[in-house]
Parts: sequence; C-alpha cells; structure tokens
Amino acid sequence: MSAAADTSTVSETHAPDDTYTPTDRTVPTRSRQRASYDKELVHSILDEAYVCHLGFVRDGAPVVLPTLFGRVGERLYVHGSTGSRPLRAAGDGTSAPGLPVCLTVTHVDGLVLARSAFHHSLNYRSVVVHGTAHQVTDPEELRTALDALVDHVVPGRSADSRPGNAKELAATAVIRLDLDEVSAKVRTGGPNDDPEDLALPYWSGVIPVQGGHGTPVPADDLDPSVALPGYLAAL
Amino acid sequence: MSAAADTSTVSETHAPDDTYTPTDRTVPTRSRQRASYDKELVHSILDEAYVCHLGFVRDGAPVVLPTLFGRVGERLYVHGSTGSRPLRAAGDGTSAPGLPVCLTVTHVDGLVLARSAFHHSLNYRSVVVHGTAHQVTDPEELRTALDALVDHVVPGRSADSRPGNAKELAATAVIRLDLDEVSAKVRTGGPNDDPEDLALPYWSGVIPVQGGHGTPVPADDLDPSVALPGYLAAL
Repeated sequence: MSAAADTSTVSETHAPDDTYTPTDRTVPTRSRQRASYDKELVHSILDEAYVCHLGFVRDGAPVVLPTLFGRVGERLYVHGSTGSRPLRAAGDGTSAPGLPVCLTVTHVDGLVLARSAFHHSLNYRSVVVHGTAHQVTDPEELRTALDALVDHVVPGRSADSRPGNAKELAATAVIRLDLDEVSAKVRTGGPNDDPEDLALPYWSGVIPVQGGHGTPVPADDLDPSVALPGYLAAL
Repeated sequence: MSAAADTSTVSETHAPDDTYTPTDRTVPTRSRQRASYDKELVHSILDEAYVCHLGFVRDGAPVVLPTLFGRVGERLYVHGSTGSRPLRAAGDGTSAPGLPVCLTVTHVDGLVLARSAFHHSLNYRSVVVHGTAHQVTDPEELRTALDALVDHVVPGRSADSRPGNAKELAATAVIRLDLDEVSAKVRTGGPNDDPEDLALPYWSGVIPVQGGHGTPVPADDLDPSVALPGYLAAL
C-alpha cells in the first residue's frame, strides 16, 4: 500500500515542534534504540521527578548536586540561594557567559533479573539536558519560576501558600536552562537472556519498583482547624 | 563532672575509622548542619540506591549519567561497556591518570509543605563522592566488582545466577572509585515556617514519599517449574 510508504516518510522527518534535534552529545554510544527525542516523553519524565541531578565544572573537576527544579514549557528553573557556588558562577546572562551544566533526571521502574549475571539490568526512564544556565534577573520571570518550583513538588500548591515577599525574593536565586539539547532514554520489558541460558534453573523476570506517598503528617504547630486540602488527599 | 569534658573531647576528635575527613569540596556552602561524614550513614544511603548519578567532564563540559554501581567496603564500582566514553577515559590506572568524577546518590523521603512558598523543601538523604576513577584490570577484582554490582540490585542474587564467562568479562568494563572524599547530607522533620506565618490558613506538614516493590513478573520464557526464590519474595 502506498499509504505505508507515506507513513514511514512522516515518521522519519519529525515535525520540529514534537522532538528535540539530536546532537553529538545526545546520541548515546550504547543502546541507541533506547534513546528518544520526543518532547512529550521528556516532559513527562521531568515532571514526575522531585529532584534533578545538576552537574557543573568547578576548578576543572565535575560536581553533581541534587536539587529542586521546575518546568515552564521548554524552560527549566533550578533553585538555590544567592550565595551558592553554581548560581554565582551562572551570572546574570549579560555580564557573564553563563554556566555550562548537565541536568539529569532518572526514574527506576524495575529490577531486571536475568539468568546470567551479565544481563542483569534496570528498567528506567531518564532525561539528560545539556546547556548553559543563566541567572534569572527579571522580577516577573523570577516569580513565575518560583511558582513553578513549588508547583513541581505539588501541583496547585503555589496558589495555596504565602507568596514570596521582597526579602525572600532577594535571598533566592534561580537559574534558567532551556530545553534544547535534550534526550530521553527508556528501558522496558523483561530480561534478554541468551538462548543457551533459558533452561538454567534461576528465577528470571522483573521486580517492579514503585513510588508512592504515605499518610500526610501535619506540622506540630498546625492549627487543627486547617483541614487537609483535596489536592493533597488525592496524591 | 570531669567525665563530661572527656566526652566532649572524644566527640570532637572523631575516630578516623568512623568518619571521612571533610575537605573544601565536601563542606557545603549552605545548610552545613545537615552535612555528615559518618561512614555508616554514608554506606546505608549508598546501599539503598539502585542508581547513582556519575558526573565527569568531557570537552570541558559536564556530563551526568545515571548508572548501576556496587560497593565493597570503602570502594565503589561503576559498570559500563568497554566502549563507553567515561570508561575509556578512565584508563587502567597505570597508563592514564584516571578520570575525575563526582558520584551522587539521592533519596527523597518527603515533601515538606510550609505555609510560605519560600520554606517549601524536601526531606532527603544524599551522598556526594569526589575522586578519581580508574578502570579495574585485575581479573579477580573484576569478578568481585561484578558480583557486587549484581548483589547491589538484589542482595544474594550473584549466587543465584550464571556467573560471567570469559567473553562477557572481556566485554565489560568497571571503574573503581575509593570512598575517601565523601559527605552525606540529610534533611528530616517538618516545615520551618517563620513565626509570623504560623496562623496562616494553609495546610502545612510533610507528605512522606515511599518506595516499594510490586509483584514480581516472571519472564515470558521462564520455565513454570522455577519458583520465586525466598530472597525475592522477601523484597
């Protein structure tokens, strides 16, 4: 059918709006079939994570720190105090060239147990973002970024808490990283044992790894008249 | 009591065996009270994690990749194929100076919801290891490392799977990173709202974040006579 050929062509020339353009840094050397540049997939992996791991170079050596982040469209915001080392290095985007960073998010979905030690693996979803971070200086963008950081932890929470005041905003630094050079990597499914190992007497399969939330613990000083809001009970 | 003075002296001069010595890189610029150099704490945080985030420098820019790891005493092993970029760069410890790395592990334990947006936080436990990685070339150490990698995913699993053969060992590269320049960082407890915010009508407290395992899924090609072993049922 000629329709099949058309479909194939379409799938190979992605609409630019739907995918990130691969670069030397975002094409993995191993397991290329697990790589994806689909924006929707990348967003879903990012939005599900509570922390990212932010890498930067200090005195020639790598540093990797876990940190809160938020997303607004194709832009990530990472939070810190104005005194923190990476944020000072990022500058304000005008007087400084910005800070080269690599921001990575990973979810472990399953333990993949093969008959052979060699084929043990994890099921996972990860996103790696390469780019240059700049400090957010525009007051309006800073407010948007801080709301995004709070709503990333619990969607809807920024509207149900006291917004930052002038003193707090002055003590808070946020860096911006555009989603441009980005890839996702996903492994799903069961173990891939070699055919000659299938008869070995070892249990083989996947142990799912699950995340979840426990019962909310009110603050010691919470007024008992303040009920648990619906968006928290629904987590 | 003179005994009290003695105790104080002891607590300030840690036994070298129990703690890592702080360095410029392992003393945080923020929230120093959350830092710890206790080896037992560091080990427990590392051992609970399925992946670490490994940072290194490539062409002057940072790279952060999620990867499996294992621990044997005060030594970490990170796994990869012989063709992977960081492993090639690490060399064999004799012909190459090794690869400067930063290896970070993070557990999120709770969402800390304050009345003020500013005081929102996470409860977490993290470990950051700085050092120089070298490729493992000794065959005996390589076998030990591969067992540790498998047992890190499920304790006891290396004894219940087929060990690597010569071909598999040749295709596997492992790098070694000594636990030497190491710190943990831990946040626990409820929100720290400012006194003037305590009467605000926002729910405040902690939403615990829990990890767990789902029901094991046997491989499609698993012989039905192979029962789920006890160490997996107990996860």
